Amino acid sequence: MTSERLMRLAASVKGLGYHPSGWRYPGAATTADLGFYTQMAHLAERGLFDLLFVPDRLAVAMYDSPPGALGRSCAVTDLEPLTLLAALAPVTRHLGLAATVSTTFTEPYHIARSFASLDHISAGRAAWNVVTSTLDEEAHNFGMKGMPAKAERYARAREAVDVVTRLWKSWEADAFVRDTSSGKYFDPDKVHYLDHQGQFFQVRGPLNVPRPPQGRPVIIQAGASPGGRELAAETADVVYTVQNTLEAAQAYYTDVKNRMAAYGRRPDELLVMPGILSVVADTEAEARAKYQAMQENVDPMLGLAHLSLMVGDLSSYDLDGPVPPIPEDARVPSRRRVWTNLARERGLTIRQFFQTIAIANGHLEAVGTPGQIADVMEEWFTEGAADGFNVMSAVAPASLDEFTRYVVPELQRRGLFRTAYERRTLRENLGLN
Amino acid sequence: MTSERLMRLAASVKGLGYHPSGWRYPGAATTADLGFYTQMAHLAERGLFDLLFVPDRLAVAMYDSPPGALGRSCAVTDLEPLTLLAALAPVTRHLGLAATVSTTFTEPYHIARSFASLDHISAGRAAWNVVTSTLDEEAHNFGMKGMPAKAERYARAREAVDVVTRLWKSWEADAFVRDTSSGKYFDPDKVHYLDHQGQFFQVRGPLNVPRPPQGRPVIIQAGASPGGRELAAETADVVYTVQNTLEAAQAYYTDVKNRMAAYGRRPDELLVMPGILSVVADTEAEARAKYQAMQENVDPMLGLAHLSLMVGDLSSYDLDGPVPPIPEDARVPSRRRVWTNLARERGLTIRQFFQTIAIANGHLEAVGTPGQIADVMEEWFTEGAADGFNVMSAVAPASLDEFTRYVVPELQRRGLFRTAYERRTLRENLGLN
Repeated sequence: MTSERLMRLAASVKGLGYHPSGWRYPGAATTADLGFYTQMAHLAERGLFDLLFVPDRLAVAMYDSPPGALGRSCAVTDLEPLTLLAALAPVTRHLGLAATVSTTFTEPYHIARSFASLDHISAGRAAWNVVTSTLDEEAHNFGMKGMPAKAERYARAREAVDVVTRLWKSWEADAFVRDTSSGKYFDPDKVHYLDHQGQFFQVRGPLNVPRPPQGRPVIIQAGASPGGRELAAETADVVYTVQNTLEAAQAYYTDVKNRMAAYGRRPDELLVMPGILSVVADTEAEARAKYQAMQENVDPMLGLAHLSLMVGDLSSYDLDGPVPPIPEDARVPSRRRVWTNLARERGLTIRQFFQTIAIANGHLEAVGTPGQIADVMEEWFTEGAADGFNVMSAVAPASLDEFTRYVVPELQRRGLFRTAYERRTLRENLGLN
Repeated sequence: MTSERLMRLAASVKGLGYHPSGWRYPGAATTADLGFYTQMAHLAERGLFDLLFVPDRLAVAMYDSPPGALGRSCAVTDLEPLTLLAALAPVTRHLGLAATVSTTFTEPYHIARSFASLDHISAGRAAWNVVTSTLDEEAHNFGMKGMPAKAERYARAREAVDVVTRLWKSWEADAFVRDTSSGKYFDPDKVHYLDHQGQFFQVRGPLNVPRPPQGRPVIIQAGASPGGRELAAETADVVYTVQNTLEAAQAYYTDVKNRMAAYGRRPDELLVMPGILSVVADTEAEARAKYQAMQENVDPMLGLAHLSLMVGDLSSYDLDGPVPPIPEDARVPSRRRVWTNLARERGLTIRQFFQTIAIANGHLEAVGTPGQIADVMEEWFTEGAADGFNVMSAVAPASLDEFTRYVVPELQRRGLFRTAYERRTLRENLGLN
């Protein structure tokens, strides 16, 4: 590790934390309002995180299977990510602001405009997490009978990213002269039309927002399937991934980076950032006890609902019996293998299965002292498995608070993480060009 | 006038002011960035305005006819209204935040979600200005060959407003119980699906944002045509209008209010707010000289470009000769009559024509002392022509600063305008239910 390569950290803020019953913890936030998000943003900025990341979904996931779960999830409503992050811009200074927007349901002109605007409002801290959406419930809110096929969604996403990034270049950086004496406001030779005629979109341009301060706001993706990996290798600055072993993470890392050469990109132009959920305490025993309690605190109804969404309804089986063969119609195929492998390798009961995956959702879990958590992160970072991590808070704001107070200083002591924000924009702070 | 009926004021912030060359004035803002809008918002809140209003357009209006105008307009780019207003929410406390969003190019689920979110972020200060868009350049950015016919745009707008307002009611106000002991987060009986199957939209719902603090964020429209007036009478809380004589304003006011009964609405449930552009000084002579200088400072190229957009290209005629017959293909038919009448009644030259309309755009102009301006506003307010005004700043921020320092105190002395914000939400402050 040279002094130039530093670990990148994103704080993933999914509603009230990743633990489905986290809102019931003493002191936990129970409402995902602006005050809550402001608190999370301030914690992340205090911890010198690169960015705050807000996932999204365009429907209420009702968690109504089994029926007893209905009404027990706190993850049914939220604030819209772009307005939320715009409101956080004036109360933060350095933190990157990453909003999720789906290319399946949003016009690229709107996407380009909103992120260019957020980038101006935040003085160069905007990031777009590109998703294609997966739930039929989302399609039903936009006049569709169901989700388009995955291949079509990815083709549309690729075209949308292309259109959006070209719209951001509508105005050259020095297009605006604003010469009060002559009355010339801009140089017409420095504005460009797209005249894009594609498979999914026809967009004339130019964008009616000046060039974003970053030129190109940071583009994030989370492709796991071959199509997703290819899209990330071609267009992303950051890729999130679900990994829970070093070997699998290394294989993913190598695969995605190897795909980049075909697009004329260097491996260091894309940051691979697996999710990590850490449970930290002064001693390993304390941390393990805390984690054990967390697992036992998963509301069984929500545990079953989580399984139902991910692998199918298992509520007719004995909770303390073995996990039955996973149905074939699971909705998130590329993650299903992760779940199936987990349950089989560890010989889990259904209860243990949902306790295991309902919190970290299949991501890397690190349970232990600050040093032990930093060990895992350092190993992944130095052994070709990660350029950084998407830090998931089990209980909010407590988990993020603990991470910044205990784990971040340990990473800093090892020279793995910044001790102050280096530059002005998110892209610069991430070390991207 | 009873003490209960108070005049309502909106501060309309169109880029760098309504004067097309206003950015060239000493001390004027030359960049429509967050700092500029923050300054305008603070001025409006200091002046106890009900709301800040941001118009919008989904394309660059290039002002390239005549060709000599190209590069001289400062109104080609801007920030996206929803992200902009979300960023202003944390730095204001009482001011309503009104964003323009077109129903022709945006899905109602997105609209409902963004405004519900803005309403939460601002603690009940969001307003949606519903427009249907008019320019083919906008259609070209969204895969369309040109604008849909007006009747279709209005039918779509009506259905969109219906869907959006019903989506806002997805969650009852007391749906969220958040009971940490039982684990019940919400009451499933208090969430509602739409299952909307309409002519333009199919939306299942529910909205994935809790009920907005205002219940229904304030809805603004600017319908001038019969179709627009009807839509406003049926659905709007506030209607903007272009009027420049008391008689015409009274006729409009009466007509729109009369249309409301058919929808079971009382006249006081809709606020008619004509635009007003004031030029204020200590004496009438000074104000007139200031206005005269403003008119002479209109860049002739931009004046011709403005005419070209509104009534057709007149650049081949003598600037100081009479206005020729107005071509029939003008793009904004319902405003064209206003222009044509103006030019004919006053016997204007082309230069006088654009000097007359390029700043106030056909709206009421009030030039004089604070008392004279208040006289006009009081007359319109008490004589059945207006419930309030949409205050247009010619030069920004100077015009708004002057209005708040000179005109607002005069309105307050007369008991026409508030001396402090009365309530919590925009809807409450506007006196609407």
